[in-house]
Amino acid sequence: MEKTIAVLPGDGIGPEIIQQAVKVLQAVADKYQHSFHIQEYAFGGAAIDRHGQPLPDETLAACQAADAVLMGAVGGPKWDDVPKEIRPEKGLLALRKRLGLYANLRPSRLFSQLKAASPLRADISEQGFDFVIVRELTGGIYFGNHQTFEEDGQTYAEDNLRYSEAEIRRILTVAFTTAQKRNKKLCLVDKANVLDSSKLWRKICQTMASDYPDVDVNYMYVDNAAMQIVGNPGQFDTIVTENMFGDILSDVASMITGSIGMIPSASMAEGSFGLYEPIHGSAPDIAGQNIANPIGTILSTAMMLDYSLGLSKEARAIEKVVDQFLDQGYRSADTLTPGMQELSCSAIGDYIAQAI
Amino acid sequence: MEKTIAVLPGDGIGPEIIQQAVKVLQAVADKYQHSFHIQEYAFGGAAIDRHGQPLPDETLAACQAADAVLMGAVGGPKWDDVPKEIRPEKGLLALRKRLGLYANLRPSRLFSQLKAASPLRADISEQGFDFVIVRELTGGIYFGNHQTFEEDGQTYAEDNLRYSEAEIRRILTVAFTTAQKRNKKLCLVDKANVLDSSKLWRKICQTMASDYPDVDVNYMYVDNAAMQIVGNPGQFDTIVTENMFGDILSDVASMITGSIGMIPSASMAEGSFGLYEPIHGSAPDIAGQNIANPIGTILSTAMMLDYSLGLSKEARAIEKVVDQFLDQGYRSADTLTPGMQELSCSAIGDYIAQAI
Ligand SMILES: CC(C)[C@H](C(=O)O)[C@@H](O)C(=O)O
Ligand SMILES: CC(C)[C@H](C(=O)O)[C@@H](O)C(=O)O
Repeated sequence: MEKTIAVLPGDGIGPEIIQQAVKVLQAVADKYQHSFHIQEYAFGGAAIDRHGQPLPDETLAACQAADAVLMGAVGGPKWDDVPKEIRPEKGLLALRKRLGLYANLRPSRLFSQLKAASPLRADISEQGFDFVIVRELTGGIYFGNHQTFEEDGQTYAEDNLRYSEAEIRRILTVAFTTAQKRNKKLCLVDKANVLDSSKLWRKICQTMASDYPDVDVNYMYVDNAAMQIVGNPGQFDTIVTENMFGDILSDVASMITGSIGMIPSASMAEGSFGLYEPIHGSAPDIAGQNIANPIGTILSTAMMLDYSLGLSKEARAIEKVVDQFLDQGYRSADTLTPGMQELSCSAIGDYIAQAI
Repeated sequence: MEKTIAVLPGDGIGPEIIQQAVKVLQAVADKYQHSFHIQEYAFGGAAIDRHGQPLPDETLAACQAADAVLMGAVGGPKWDDVPKEIRPEKGLLALRKRLGLYANLRPSRLFSQLKAASPLRADISEQGFDFVIVRELTGGIYFGNHQTFEEDGQTYAEDNLRYSEAEIRRILTVAFTTAQKRNKKLCLVDKANVLDSSKLWRKICQTMASDYPDVDVNYMYVDNAAMQIVGNPGQFDTIVTENMFGDILSDVASMITGSIGMIPSASMAEGSFGLYEPIHGSAPDIAGQNIANPIGTILSTAMMLDYSLGLSKEARAIEKVVDQFLDQGYRSADTLTPGMQELSCSAIGDYIAQAI
């Protein structure tokens, strides 16, 4: 199978973790006889430095032409003071919008080997949890009108949260089908006691529910959901929510695993196209030291093989090797505990590539 | 000292917990020779049943005429299907707006006697935490325009988040002075990498910071803040944020204490007027069984004495008795652990009133 993958290493530890993921991809290609055309493009702070903007045209065009995009991490204090029109975040939001990546899938699963790292109480983490947050990614208050204006000698600022029926329907479709492939429980998180947009989400979800009779649907206010993720994460299977609530909840959901460096994510467009990235940041403080954890990126690669390239056997193989890596007592610096053996970023990439 | 207190028992367990708080207030009045004029008014679901609306004019007028308002809890499934214009939440939002309660203070503190109840890992809860969230309560997306409309055969829904300089300045003033009375650390939580309103908050906070040179100010994105509250709550002293972020974060902050029934809150207007309520809900499933935890309401009464009635000695006395109650091994049903002695809702009220 021949596939084209655009790779955006980005900033900070981005390049070094991406290098490990590419190693693993190459090992998969060798083992399973695929041919992956992998090429790197400038994005984020690195692109600001080289091209004066976070999302150069060439990068966007390459992503659009590819079967999937693999990203490292973007941003850092170095670009805190660039003009706001060209900040790294602007590039990220533009990339999501231009590629139509409306469905962000954020799995939150406790690795049994890393339970002790969870900030949750032992009896809660002991029970484990395994859920996914489906976050709407190209609508809502992120992409509404933003304005700052003067009136009667005072400054006002305004942000607009808008959703259309079509936007809500397509993300809920992803959520329902995700739930069907999992434990068939879907929780819509909203603030329907306050927001009109939430009321519309809830109404559409209620009408769609009858098309998925095998899926159990429940509804939760966002404040309660944030509490429940901390107090009783085991209750969730699939959570679906709008962009801003999803931003907050998916980070809480990552935090409770205690191993943020291990978590992958997928951002999907219509069809099978998607962008894959670890959920952690660019960690400029440890960049270049070969101690970053590449596993979040490597597991993102597994999601890419599965969802965009139709290679689920290969995806499972990577996941199995990661499990075996942990079982054998190897750890990255950020997940190291007494008695375990630390491997460097590149050594982890080597291990996983070899084991494939 | 003569003071008028309007009491809104509300729904579910509201009336029974309020009864205990009133007992305690009367004990304070006797002991310290004050005269409190305490009168109950209909609010929430109870008011919908009796008057066809959640916030009757008489109730609003009584609150406006009082020195402070004490509230129980509002809402419940019984009113899920009432027309949305008269839902209990509408009454709550109208009450906040009409009374000008723009500053919601939500303390999050781990009772040393209840550490084991925290859902956080033992070594995190062992370190304890004690911070307060200052939530803006009468602005932002809660009170912006909400509209649902049809266009080109599709339904759209929109909610508007707006803040004026004056609204931001007055809540930040509360936050800075709160931090000054505490450990002089203020964290502004926003989403300034996406929202214009957040950028305005940050800009105003930066300019105000020089007026409070003794306060250390830092800035955090809301997604990160939600994670940090779970992973490292001990880092916070005073958090300030806009209405919706505050709704979510203050519930996470309550959850990590593991004893939601114990937590008070204050919602302040300009001057010393305020409304006080426990942070938990109306818990209709246990209403009338005399097992609810009245301590959140009793500690709300302490905040009322302190902030609205200028009676801080009396407030400290209540807090001391609650501490002593826990030290002696008494517990409410919701915080009961092996070896402790359970007291009913009314028995807890009796104990605290007597000890005063
Ligand atoms: C950088 C920022 C704009 C972004 C977001 O809020 O979407 C980030 O927090 C994320 O979740 O990918
Ligand atoms: C009931 C609801 C409108 C309310 C809010 O979101 O403000 C509640 O969650 C709260 O925090 O008091």
